[in-house]
Formats: sequence, structure tokens, C-alpha cells
Amino acid sequence: MRFFSDNAAPAHPKVMEAIERSNRLDTAYDGDEWSRRLDSAFSDLFEQDVKALWVSTGTAANCLALAALCPPYRGILCHRDAHIEVDEAGAPGFFTGGAKLILLDGAGAKLAPETVEAAIGLIRKDVHQVQPAALSITNATEYGLVYRASEVGALGDVAHKNGLGFHMDGARFANAVVTTGETPADLTWRAGLDALSFGFVKNGGLNAECLVLFDTDLADEVAVRRKRAGHLSSKGRMLAAQILALLEDDLWLDNARASNAAAQALGKASPGRLVYPVEANEIFLRVTPEEAASLRAEGFDFYDWGPGEIRLVTSWDQDEHAVRKLADAISKL
Amino acid sequence: MRFFSDNAAPAHPKVMEAIERSNRLDTAYDGDEWSRRLDSAFSDLFEQDVKALWVSTGTAANCLALAALCPPYRGILCHRDAHIEVDEAGAPGFFTGGAKLILLDGAGAKLAPETVEAAIGLIRKDVHQVQPAALSITNATEYGLVYRASEVGALGDVAHKNGLGFHMDGARFANAVVTTGETPADLTWRAGLDALSFGFVKNGGLNAECLVLFDTDLADEVAVRRKRAGHLSSKGRMLAAQILALLEDDLWLDNARASNAAAQALGKASPGRLVYPVEANEIFLRVTPEEAASLRAEGFDFYDWGPGEIRLVTSWDQDEHAVRKLADAISKL
Amino acid sequence: MRFFSDNAAPAHPKVMEAIERSNRLDTAYDGDEWSRRLDSAFSDLFEQDVKALWVSTGTAANCLALAALCPPYRGILCHRDAHIEVDEAGAPGFFTGGAKLILLDGAGAKLAPETVEAAIGLIRKDVHQVQPAALSITNATEYGLVYRASEVGALGDVAHKNGLGFHMDGARFANAVVTTGETPADLTWRAGLDALSFGFVKNGGLNAECLVLFDTDLADEVAVRRKRAGHLSSKGRMLAAQILALLEDDLWLDNARASNAAAQALGKASPGRLVYPVEANEIFLRVTPEEAASLRAEGFDFYDWGPGEIRLVTSWDQDEHAVRKLADAISKL
Amino acid sequence: MRFFSDNAAPAHPKVMEAIERSNRLDTAYDGDEWSRRLDSAFSDLFEQDVKALWVSTGTAANCLALAALCPPYRGILCHRDAHIEVDEAGAPGFFTGGAKLILLDGAGAKLAPETVEAAIGLIRKDVHQVQPAALSITNATEYGLVYRASEVGALGDVAHKNGLGFHMDGARFANAVVTTGETPADLTWRAGLDALSFGFVKNGGLNAECLVLFDTDLADEVAVRRKRAGHLSSKGRMLAAQILALLEDDLWLDNARASNAAAQALGKASPGRLVYPVEANEIFLRVTPEEAASLRAEGFDFYDWGPGEIRLVTSWDQDEHAVRKLADAISKL
Repeated sequence: MRFFSDNAAPAHPKVMEAIERSNRLDTAYDGDEWSRRLDSAFSDLFEQDVKALWVSTGTAANCLALAALCPPYRGILCHRDAHIEVDEAGAPGFFTGGAKLILLDGAGAKLAPETVEAAIGLIRKDVHQVQPAALSITNATEYGLVYRASEVGALGDVAHKNGLGFHMDGARFANAVVTTGETPADLTWRAGLDALSFGFVKNGGLNAECLVLFDTDLADEVAVRRKRAGHLSSKGRMLAAQILALLEDDLWLDNARASNAAAQALGKASPGRLVYPVEANEIFLRVTPEEAASLRAEGFDFYDWGPGEIRLVTSWDQDEHAVRKLADAISKL
Repeated sequence: MRFFSDNAAPAHPKVMEAIERSNRLDTAYDGDEWSRRLDSAFSDLFEQDVKALWVSTGTAANCLALAALCPPYRGILCHRDAHIEVDEAGAPGFFTGGAKLILLDGAGAKLAPETVEAAIGLIRKDVHQVQPAALSITNATEYGLVYRASEVGALGDVAHKNGLGFHMDGARFANAVVTTGETPADLTWRAGLDALSFGFVKNGGLNAECLVLFDTDLADEVAVRRKRAGHLSSKGRMLAAQILALLEDDLWLDNARASNAAAQALGKASPGRLVYPVEANEIFLRVTPEEAASLRAEGFDFYDWGPGEIRLVTSWDQDEHAVRKLADAISKL
Repeated sequence: MRFFSDNAAPAHPKVMEAIERSNRLDTAYDGDEWSRRLDSAFSDLFEQDVKALWVSTGTAANCLALAALCPPYRGILCHRDAHIEVDEAGAPGFFTGGAKLILLDGAGAKLAPETVEAAIGLIRKDVHQVQPAALSITNATEYGLVYRASEVGALGDVAHKNGLGFHMDGARFANAVVTTGETPADLTWRAGLDALSFGFVKNGGLNAECLVLFDTDLADEVAVRRKRAGHLSSKGRMLAAQILALLEDDLWLDNARASNAAAQALGKASPGRLVYPVEANEIFLRVTPEEAASLRAEGFDFYDWGPGEIRLVTSWDQDEHAVRKLADAISKL
Repeated sequence: MRFFSDNAAPAHPKVMEAIERSNRLDTAYDGDEWSRRLDSAFSDLFEQDVKALWVSTGTAANCLALAALCPPYRGILCHRDAHIEVDEAGAPGFFTGGAKLILLDGAGAKLAPETVEAAIGLIRKDVHQVQPAALSITNATEYGLVYRASEVGALGDVAHKNGLGFHMDGARFANAVVTTGETPADLTWRAGLDALSFGFVKNGGLNAECLVLFDTDLADEVAVRRKRAGHLSSKGRMLAAQILALLEDDLWLDNARASNAAAQALGKASPGRLVYPVEANEIFLRVTPEEAASLRAEGFDFYDWGPGEIRLVTSWDQDEHAVRKLADAISKL
């Protein structure tokens, strides 16, 4: 019974059907009928004209956005546990041409506006120190916490006051939308966001993510950078079709509800062990090595997360029975 | 009836089935059972230990290889009509960190060993001029010509004599194998090749290409560069599965035979109009604008290719009836 | 008697005195009194508000300008014999982060407006081909030809019509000003130029060049890029002092007059041998290997320039007696 | 009376004389007689065959070395207060093509071997996290502390055990040599160093620094990178001449002795106020804003360094009388 990653789950059957249906001759690259529907599909969802470009990984979505928001000689403010810093092999440095990640602290990988302000205040305004050009946050965060629209907005205010572009890594954006009950618009552009890496792969997609640009002026540059990074698939219709399938009838929200619910069930099993409150589909627990071993002996699969902690991740297709068994097992530790 | 690109064709049904079958929980990235079979599958095919990494586009395959073969401060010798120069949005510059493409001439986008030697000879051996580090050729070429093993080998000799890495863009490698009747091994590492971008997308695949490394020492670096470029898909099994499906029972060769045969049929329709001999699945014809218009009026879809020329491309699934109709139409012009 | 390079000549005594005088405590980097005078000195010279930044090499001046005018994913139109293409070790690729030099033809390394227009016309307006962002010319050219203000202006029109930044490599700008008799303003910003690499090192300076920005909005970015490239010397006053010494009393023009005059004397010695008209301080002559050897036997030092050609270069301090001797020797060949 | 920077001091008269003497025709770039003497001069000094290349700034020396030691997709371990991180405008990111600085802690900007080991231990050995390729330290550090040869050697052991290149930013290397009384060889290659940025500008030079390569295999690559970064001055003899003048009769050591002695005098004035022990030519003192203001009112010029601290820097030419006056003033605070 696996609780180690939402990355590894299968794609949703409707996604597979959509890929199958899109498997017919059409214009190559993003000239096909599916790809051409993305802008309007996301504009509807976000109640605002946006540009939407498929890519095949979250790293590509994040770093194409950051490259458009930050020139090589400036910096990107982010949390020191952000995926772009910790798990993308230095991709931001590659895509931006050497821009600097300026690392900030904050509990549960969340940034507070004051932290961002303070960091900016410490940078001398001269040519010797790297001046920031962008702010990037992750929602839900790498520790499964969620920013509310008001929290995003407070960071957006800091960003714009300081002339920074504002990006959100939304690998688990769906989970954040479900948890907050707030609209995609409120959580993004109304809160000052310029670009969102809208994640689908961890939420029922196969290999399609979407980079949504609220600052639509960035679209032409991003389209060129996507090609230049080898991310313009010739049969891009299969990427667009996946995304459209997940948007249809709010399948993306159903999937996120399922993984969030599974996480809540696990979180309630032993509240005293929680390292962070459970707000999305990740659960961090304090367990001894012996306890971890005993869970594994019962057939549960998960990652250790530093000494005395484990990480559980739930997926859109998490088996309810397995969840219940694991919740029981944790309660009994 | 479309003859404009093999890029736009659908994927082969067996490829779609393989994707479907691989859609189940497994280790993320390239730790799954399909991805782990690639090295041995390609080692069998090439009769030699090789490393094989999936990527989702030919641009990514080409440029990851070039980045591993050429440091930022050196150059890559290639034809001036090479895809890496003409159609990849400057991706080699991006992946290598600014290495220079050194452009050479040659009929039908083919390079001759003497041309390469002469170009190297013209470069002063000092720090002011960019010294070459790699040679890249395309087989079949952008004009549908094919290098025989002996021709590749002659270029390989020049490359190694001059300390150059040697790369082949094999977006249409299958077509070259079929045309020459030579083995994959003879056309590549036995001829001195270090890396091959082995194309599947134009030949029945959906979105999987394979970078085959004959210099296996490059594999670790390429794996890191792949991640850093945002090309390490978390459900990479769907890419590996496609490739394995095309290798199985030589489906890749069947597909190439089909597209080559269709091209031959078209080539024979009006030999006097051929700009180049037909050796793969691309046909370049001299036709007047009026003739082109009349073909289009009959329902044939293709690209103009400079003044007075058109390009026809055939695919693995090219409809025989349409091919015959087009051949007739050309004959009657 | 050396005629091989103006690069290797000594600095003018007034330049050396200026360096000596500036050798006293002042604010570091470019906060000193000399550096702070550059903007106004060049604004006076160009009859327009400009920004002027010292750097220590022409390569740095050229490539800082190009990086500010061209993003990594676009291209720079230039002559295929341009110094930035041929003699800067790929520095444009380094400074821009991988932008492409798009190489054009033209006799004597001069570009014609129609050539530039035609090249732009051949680029498909899509994401697959690299779109140009800048045009760079050299005045005087690498073959010692000069652009008049009207010629620069015609190129400037093409540049601006196509949304291109416009840069001039003026390693020998002084020679061009002297030859044309036109004003610095007419030869630059009035003709549409955004940035000029104003050369001093070949014209009596020791190691100071000046990047003059007519598009003053570029100055902040260029200042950061200069630091980031390791070109912000802490005792920059020694660079500014050199430049100011050469501007004072038009010493830069006197020096260029001297080298131009020496070149004219050589050019007149054997007009039938000239490969190009002599318009600056470089002379290209057709001589047989035996003739070249005989000149060398008489003590003259110069470069061969391809088969059957030699290049002579005159400097600000060229000894008149040696010039006369060489002119005689050429006449007598 | 200025105590704000050794960067801003004038060059030593013997340096100026050397520049003057070298101002005559010679081969351009680094082919002249002075440049050609560098390798042997530094090989003598370091009792070992080394390669020595002049550059005009410490940033260039540091970043050329780092680019040769670290590929774009890996990282450089350094102190979080290191000059390369804090004061070079992101130049390491530019020169390396986006490598990551991995920031470590340590009192007084000094790194301990255990800190380096621990940091390496925390990096997962996979393609998602950036693996280190190099270690860079500063001697004397940014806070005026000195590494002894044994300390450098302990770090060198960690570096080599982990396959890291090892670089020292020696902007104030002379001060460290004087303080430790250890030989240049013991403080560098015998302790495992691959490359040293040997500073002269802060120690009586005008604008010449020297990159000394103990791993001489790096020299060809560094020479190309130097050109490509616009750092190959055409009259490089003026840089080499400065360096040779400072090496002659150990002038560089005399200069460092003078600045160290001035720093000692100031450090002894009020030991209770010292933030760090005084080991080179920088003194950090705890003073209230009022005390700082009163020192300034007496004519002393220096930087604030965070709240309640000031930084004093002494130079090779520090006026003894001024030093005594400042020492008195501090004692009397």
C-alpha cells in the first residue's frame, strides 16, 4: 500500500481516453484543435483573459515562468525548502541564465510578507549585490500547508510594491483550491499573481502541466523559450487533451477532494504526531524508527523525512481501505 | 490528403496500447520497470553496451547530447540546413551555454569529410577563434538523403582525428536503416558515433524519443542535464513503454518501410522533377506555383519549399490510395 | 618596423600622465571624480544626453551592449567577418546567454541595407526559427572601409522598421570620424544607433574603451552586467582618466589623423595591389609569397591575410620614416 | 583620514614605474615579454610548476577559476558571507552558466571541515539535488581572519575525499601569508588547492590580479574563458608588469606587513570592542552610533557594518600618524 508519492500514481481513465481520442492527424506542435482551446478554457476558469501553455513537467512550467520574470543578473525570492531550490537540479539557474535564488525562512515552507520585506531591505541597492526581480511561492507548500487568498494577496502587495514579478508553483494547486474553498481567480491574479504553474500530473494527469500567464504579455516570450528548451512536443494535442479532460466537469477538483480527504483521515488518526496541520494531501508525522519499521512491516510504503519523521502522500486514486488500515495502524503505534 | 509532415501523424495503435498498459503505479521518474529495460533493449539492438534515455522531443535529445559533447566555449560543426541550426529556436545555444554552431555546406544537407576537414583547417588555433569540439550530422538528412555506414565512418575518422565528439540527429534514423539495409551498429558506433538521437515520434511514436549514448561515460551527466532541463517526466514509464513497443518485433522498421515505400512511389511519378534522389520519406519536387495550386485543388496538402519547389513527406500510416492518386496527379502535371 | 597591429602600440604619453595623475585615493569602482565626468564629456561630444561606461576591452564593450540589446533566445545580425563573430572566442554567446549571430555577406565587411532586409525576410516568423533582435556593424570595418552617416542611417532605418536594436563596434571609430569628416552625432544616434563601442586602445589608449549608450535606459542594466562580468575595476579612475585625456583637445582625432595619413601614404604606393580602397588605417595588398618575403627581409613586420594577400596596419605613433621606406619598398616590388 | 577600503588606495610608485616602462611596442595580448615571465615567476614563488594568468579584477579571477572547476549543473560550497556570494553581482552564476552556490555557516566567515562534510552529507545523491563540484574559501576571510596551512589542508582533505575542486579567493592572500608566517606553497597547493585568486589590487597594485593554477591542466580552458569574458587585454603587458613589480624584492610582502601592522595598532587600541581577532588588515568594532559619529566628526572615514558595528580597513600606504590618531580616538571613546 503506497503512500510515498502522488507523482507515481496512474493517470485517470478519462485522461487516458482523451489521449486516445486525440490520437489522430492534426496540425503539429500547438496548432491543433485541443491546444487552441486552452486559452479560452483557462480564461473561463480564471474569469479573466489568460494565456495557457502546456508543458510536460512542473520543473519546465516553473522555470519557463521564472525565466520570463527574472533576467539573468537578478534574483528570485523563495523559501529555502521550495521545490525550485531543492528538487529541480538547479533548473532555475539553467533557464534564467544564472539568476540567483534568494532563500527565505518560514514554518512549513510558507513565506510571510514581513519575511520577504525584511530580505529585500537587507540587500544593498548597488551593482555589487543581486537585486530581486521575482517572488515565487508554492501552494500547497512542500509541507502540505495552504496559502489563503488573503495571504497570497499580502505577498502580492509586497511583490508589486517592490517591482517584483510574482509566480506560484501550483504543483498541488488543486488541493489548495479545494481546501480554501476560494476561487482560482481569488487565489491567483486577484492576489497579484503573474504566472501559475498549474499542476495536473500529481492529480490524475499523465504528463501534462499547464503554465497559466495572467500577465499575458509574457506569452510570446514563453512560447519561444518553451521551444528553445525542447518542450514544444510535435503532437502536443495529447498534452492539451489531458488538461481539457481534467478541467471538464471539474474532474481536477474531484481528484483533489479525494486525495485531500484521504489525507484528512490519516491526519486524524494521531493528531499528536503531526508536524504540520494537514491542509492538502501530505502528512508529516513524528514516529520513531521502530514505529516506522513496524508500519512498513504491515505493508505501508512511504518516505522517511529527516530523523524521527515520515512523509505520507495521498493520491486521487488512494484506496479507501488502505487509508483506513493505515489510519488504524498509526493510531495503534 | 496530407503530405506535409510525419510529425503530425497519429501514433501507432500498439504504441497507444503500451501507454495504456503502463498506466499503473510504479516508481516515479525513470525508476519504473519499462524505463529500466531501455539500456538492455538498445544494447541488444546495437550489439554493444549502450545507455539509453527517453526524452519527449528531438530537440531535447539533440541538445542534451550536444551539451555533453561540447563545452560552452567551443563549437559544433554541422550543415547550415541542419535542424539544430534552422528549426530549434537556438536550443543548442541554450543547452550548451552559448557554444557556436559552425555552419558547413553540402548538397542535400549532407556533409563530406573534406568539407569538415577544410573548415577545421581554416580555424586559427588560438584563443580568439572558437575551436570545434563536436560534429553533428542528420541521417536521413533534412532533404531526405541517407548516409551509408561507410560515409558515416569517413566522417567519424575526421571527427576522431581532430578530437571531436560525433553526434547524429536520427529523427529519421529508421528510414536510413531501411534504405541502407545496414545494421544500426554499422551506421553508428562502428562508424565512430558517440551519441544518437533516435527518433520515434515521426515513425509511429506519440511523444517519446530516445537518446542513445555509445560513449556510456556521458550517461550520468546527461541524466542530470535532462532533469535540469525539465525533461525528467515523473511518469516516464509512458515514454519508455512507447519506445519498447516500437522496438518489439521491429515495428519501427515496418513503419519506416511503409513511409519509405510511399515516398518511392511518389518519387517515381515524375523523376524529372526531383530536386534530390528519394532515399527516405521526403520528396522535393520542382513545380510551378500553378502546378502546386492545381495539386492543392485536388485535395493534396503539402509545404512550399522555396520558389518553385514543394516538399512532400510520407508517414508510417500513409494511405496507399492517396499516394497513388498523388503520384498520378504529379505524373499528369 | 612593425605594421602588424594598432593593438600593440604603446599608449600616448598624455594617457600615461593621466593615469599617473589619477593614482590617488578616491572612491572605488566608478564613484571617483574621473568616472563621474564621463557622461557629461561624451554628452558634449555627441551633442545629446548619453551614458558612458568604461571597460577594459573592446570585446567587453561589444558584448555588454549586445547582451542589453538581445535576449538569449533571439539573434544578432552582423557581417560574417565581424570581430564579434571571428575574433572574440564566442563572447557574444557567453554574454547574451546563447543568442545567435546571424551572418551576412558584403564586400569589405560592410553591410548593405538590402542585405539586412533580405536576411530578415528569409526568417519564418514562428517559434522554430531564431528571430533577430539587434543589428551590429563595425565602423571602420574589419577591412578598413568606412560607413558614412547616410549609410549608417539607412541601416538604422532597417533596424528600427524591424524592431531591432542597433550597435556599432567602433574599435576604429576615430578613424571613421576623421575619414568621413562627419560629426560623432551624425555617425551614431542621429543615424539610429543605440549603443557604440567607442575604441581608444587602438588609438593611443592603454587599456580603456568606452561603451556609449544613446538609449540611456540601457545604462542601469549594463552597469550591473559590467560588474557581473568582472569588469568593474576597483580603481576605475585609471580607465576614466585615459579616456578623458584622449578626449581633451581632440587628441583622439589627432591620433586617428596620424594613423589614417600613414595608411594613405602606403595605399598610394601601389594602387594596383589594393584589395580594398584605403579608408582608415588598414591596408590589404595583393603580393606574392616571394614579395612578402622580400618585404620581411627588409625588416617590415605584418600579417599574411589569406593566400596572396597581406594586411598592414598603421598606428597613431607610426614612424614617418618607416612608412616612407615601406611605401618605397612596395612600389619597387 | 580614510579607513574605509584597501580597494581605493593608490598604486605603489614601483607599480606605476613598471607600467610606464612596459609602455612600448610588444606582441599584443599575453605574448609580450612581461606576460611570458609570469609562469616562471609564480612557479618560483610557489616552489612548483604553476600557470599564472593576469586578469583585471578579483571577480574575474574567482569566477574564471570556479567555471573551470564546476560545470553548470553542479554546485560550489562556500561561506554565506563569501565575496563570491555577497559582492560579485551573481558573477559565479554567469561565468559557470548557472551553477549553484551552496552556502555554509562559520564564525568570522571561516569554514570548518566538519561543516563542509555535514553539508555534503545532507545532499541526496540523485539527479534532483545539485551535487557539489568545488569548494571555495577566502584567505584572509571577509572578516579579517586567517586560515593557517593546517586548516587549509584539513579542508583540502575534505575536498579531495569528495572529489571537489578547491579554490581560494586570495584578495588578501598577502596579508594571510604575513600573518601566518607560512610559505605560499604551504598555504596553497601543499594544502590541496587547485586554484588561487592572488590579489594585488588591494595591496599596492593598480588593476592587475593573478589567477594561479596549481592544477595546470586547467590553464588552456581558463585562457579561452578569459578571452571569452572580454578579459584578454591587448596591452596585457601593463598588467603583467604590475604583478612582476610587486613580486620583485617581495614588495607584496612589505605592503601587506604595513597594512597588517596598522591594523594591529588599531586592534590594540580597544580590545574589548573587537568583534573578531585582528589577523589581517580589517578591524570590526562594536561602537554605538554616537561613538561612530564622534569618530567621523574627528575626520575618520569608515563603513558601518550592521547595527552597532563599524569596519576599518588599512592599506599598504596607511599614514602612521593617522593610525595613531585613530587608535587614540578609539581608546578614548
